[in-house]
Amino acid sequence: MTGTAAIVGGGVIGGGWAARFALMGWEVSVFDPDPEAERKIGEVMSNAARVLPMLYEAPMHARGAITLVGSLDEAVTGADWVQESVPERLDVKHKVIAQIQAACPERAVLASSTSGFKPSELQQGAARPGQIVVAHPFNPVYLLPLVELVPSAATDDSIITRAKEILTAIGMYPLHVRAEIDAHIADRFLEAVWREALWLVKDGIATTEEIDNAIRYGFGLRWAQMGLFETYRVAGGEAGMRHFMAQFGPCLQWPWTKLTDVPEFTDELVDLIAGQSDAQSGHMGIRDLERLRDDNLVAILRALKQQGAAAGKLILDHDSSLRGPLGDGVPLVTVRRVVPVDWTDVNRHMNEGRYGQLFSDASEELMTHVGADRDYIAAGNSYFTAETSVKYLNETHAGEDIYVTTRVTLGEGKKLRLWHEMHRASDDALLATCDQFLLHVSLETRRSCPPLPQVAEVVEKLAAVHAEGTR
Amino acid sequence: MTGTAAIVGGGVIGGGWAARFALMGWEVSVFDPDPEAERKIGEVMSNAARVLPMLYEAPMHARGAITLVGSLDEAVTGADWVQESVPERLDVKHKVIAQIQAACPERAVLASSTSGFKPSELQQGAARPGQIVVAHPFNPVYLLPLVELVPSAATDDSIITRAKEILTAIGMYPLHVRAEIDAHIADRFLEAVWREALWLVKDGIATTEEIDNAIRYGFGLRWAQMGLFETYRVAGGEAGMRHFMAQFGPCLQWPWTKLTDVPEFTDELVDLIAGQSDAQSGHMGIRDLERLRDDNLVAILRALKQQGAAAGKLILDHDSSLRGPLGDGVPLVTVRRVVPVDWTDVNRHMNEGRYGQLFSDASEELMTHVGADRDYIAAGNSYFTAETSVKYLNETHAGEDIYVTTRVTLGEGKKLRLWHEMHRASDDALLATCDQFLLHVSLETRRSCPPLPQVAEVVEKLAAVHAEGTR
Repeated sequence: MTGTAAIVGGGVIGGGWAARFALMGWEVSVFDPDPEAERKIGEVMSNAARVLPMLYEAPMHARGAITLVGSLDEAVTGADWVQESVPERLDVKHKVIAQIQAACPERAVLASSTSGFKPSELQQGAARPGQIVVAHPFNPVYLLPLVELVPSAATDDSIITRAKEILTAIGMYPLHVRAEIDAHIADRFLEAVWREALWLVKDGIATTEEIDNAIRYGFGLRWAQMGLFETYRVAGGEAGMRHFMAQFGPCLQWPWTKLTDVPEFTDELVDLIAGQSDAQSGHMGIRDLERLRDDNLVAILRALKQQGAAAGKLILDHDSSLRGPLGDGVPLVTVRRVVPVDWTDVNRHMNEGRYGQLFSDASEELMTHVGADRDYIAAGNSYFTAETSVKYLNETHAGEDIYVTTRVTLGEGKKLRLWHEMHRASDDALLATCDQFLLHVSLETRRSCPPLPQVAEVVEKLAAVHAEGTR
Repeated sequence: MTGTAAIVGGGVIGGGWAARFALMGWEVSVFDPDPEAERKIGEVMSNAARVLPMLYEAPMHARGAITLVGSLDEAVTGADWVQESVPERLDVKHKVIAQIQAACPERAVLASSTSGFKPSELQQGAARPGQIVVAHPFNPVYLLPLVELVPSAATDDSIITRAKEILTAIGMYPLHVRAEIDAHIADRFLEAVWREALWLVKDGIATTEEIDNAIRYGFGLRWAQMGLFETYRVAGGEAGMRHFMAQFGPCLQWPWTKLTDVPEFTDELVDLIAGQSDAQSGHMGIRDLERLRDDNLVAILRALKQQGAAAGKLILDHDSSLRGPLGDGVPLVTVRRVVPVDWTDVNRHMNEGRYGQLFSDASEELMTHVGADRDYIAAGNSYFTAETSVKYLNETHAGEDIYVTTRVTLGEGKKLRLWHEMHRASDDALLATCDQFLLHVSLETRRSCPPLPQVAEVVEKLAAVHAEGTR
């Protein structure tokens, strides 16, 4: 599903929304009176365009355009989705919402990125309160799937339903917050941790770097995949959640936290934290840090995707929704994708093993095409690779668009032979070739056997059609 | 560095310590009067033995034995490290520490896993306070690198230094907490988040599953790699930490959190949370959940390792410290490792691409062996693979121990040809072979050129030695 999105306010968050919508095939209009808006959005888009496609193995929609327009009216006219990301002042939000509703279609979703206001507050005095909902994303918007979708009682059900569909279609996870509260859900945790961290630094217990290490070498790794409660359920062991609570419930009364007080936000505290942060990360510029963060997020998300777990499962499902049939060209185009950051090695180019994986992916697409798909495999049949010969003709680097063409050069009984060619998309340069010999197997006996008739038939036909021009 | 560790108290935490020490080559004695101790430790060890080796590409130390002994004296006599993980009651800890100090060597590190007590509290009335330190780990101890190392003013400097060396040698990150406080550092955050989560569930704002999703699809992914402050530094954009604080500092005064109160821990609240947790995760047994958690942690840690970032950088450095020279056997044993969970595919065996990666790793070891190491590459020279032919002879599965033998079959000028054989360690079965042809290149011109003389000489000699028996 694609459409037209209007982004009102083009800072880090608005720019992130613009980039995600455009990379998912939406046409995007941005309105932001800031003279620096074009440069800022360009920088966010450049970050996003490098990494978001790396999360997908499926070919993505053709990229939509991002257009900066001169007025709010122009931006929102005809939009399917309007995202408001202006500064966190309620009077400003009310004014902007009134302007948006004067020009946008009634069927559009009007979503606010606010972290501080409830939807009912945004709806005060609005022409059509039912159209308004909070869609609170997390930075970087183009990589993190979470978006808190918070309606009020006045929000139309049809708007909520459409918002969920659209957010899912652009690869996000809409967490429907059923009761509006200050700061929604996630920011309440961030706020609690932030307060505690300020105390630790202020009291000289730990530096900003020590605190970051205490998080990223420990519970941060747990939370990235299971969150809080499932982690504790596991910690409770065989007796589960109830046991965990019996064991740790009483600690709540202990003097472990200082959270009952708010640290005073003095210049001294700001200087202390800014100085420690400089000592920790000051050797890297903001672009380096953004790149580091994004590369790590891509690597973590891809690792979870490979496991089919947590946020990776969301991406896997989204990836599947992007796939279509291969068509009937000769040769077949089996893979279209970008080279992700985790495929490179010490020579700073794509590792030879990843060429093998790419050709393996190409043969999996071919298998699906001939009917040896996941259901066929689940029923106990598959093809195993017996032999490959790969020629590495040109280097390939992270971020490059590539595609693989595949011919069936032999399809007789249990034997299947494929000829893959990997190309760079920008100039069609041949990057590598692979001669791959597979055997059909029974997954029960793990021995070779003929494919089921419906697969055998398609393979034989394909071999005949592909015979012309085969080397 | 290896030695002898005594584990006093063999629950989830003590068992995790035992498993980590043993897998890192230490001899481990465990004392725990619980009649179930042997079974419980066996289960932790079985989890740990499956996954910890998956984090390493280098061959690990030979595994040490874990022995359950009949008395505390027997456990701690002669130990280099004593880890106390008994229940969190100060009177119990004092009694156990007195017994330990009556029998353990004076030079031993006596570390407590306590999350609730300060080292100065543990040291009250001790025979040798200087020997005592807190080493607070995080579950699962065999995978998460963080350990909070908290001395009091009375702890000997030499004990602190030795504790850091030993913890680093077993692959952990000792976070030296310079000022002892209740709950150390990380648990203060966990406590803050736990309180907030209890309120959200109690007030019916979100279920346990929604809260977990709010964490693992959003900020949990940021914290796994950067923690809190570096994340916010990036969020502050070009203006950095100071700007971030100016923007978000005032929110501290807003009514975002309920943390100023402690929710009452009623039976009703326990039932509510236990019930929601059952609905969320009750379809999986505890062993399934542990396996899921561990697989995800391995995948995330390996992804970060590949990026050389965050906790992955710690593992990379530890991995390097485990490597030694290849020796001069014919053929060379270039790789000894276990197949990690992220190397398998839809057929539930090792993906063909990972065979390619394994042989690539084998050739990298060979390159290091002949002097074409990381420094040589940094100076602008390397070998690129031009062609490989792989035969897949037997299936390989996650968790299997494998090794690769490598012969130089050609070493003339810029040409290098290698013959790799991959074996299963348990029965030496041949799993795959690889005929690999490489060309020496200049990393500046990206074109082939002869290797530097010192490398050329070693390669030629090796080719001559390996010529016998080469096919």
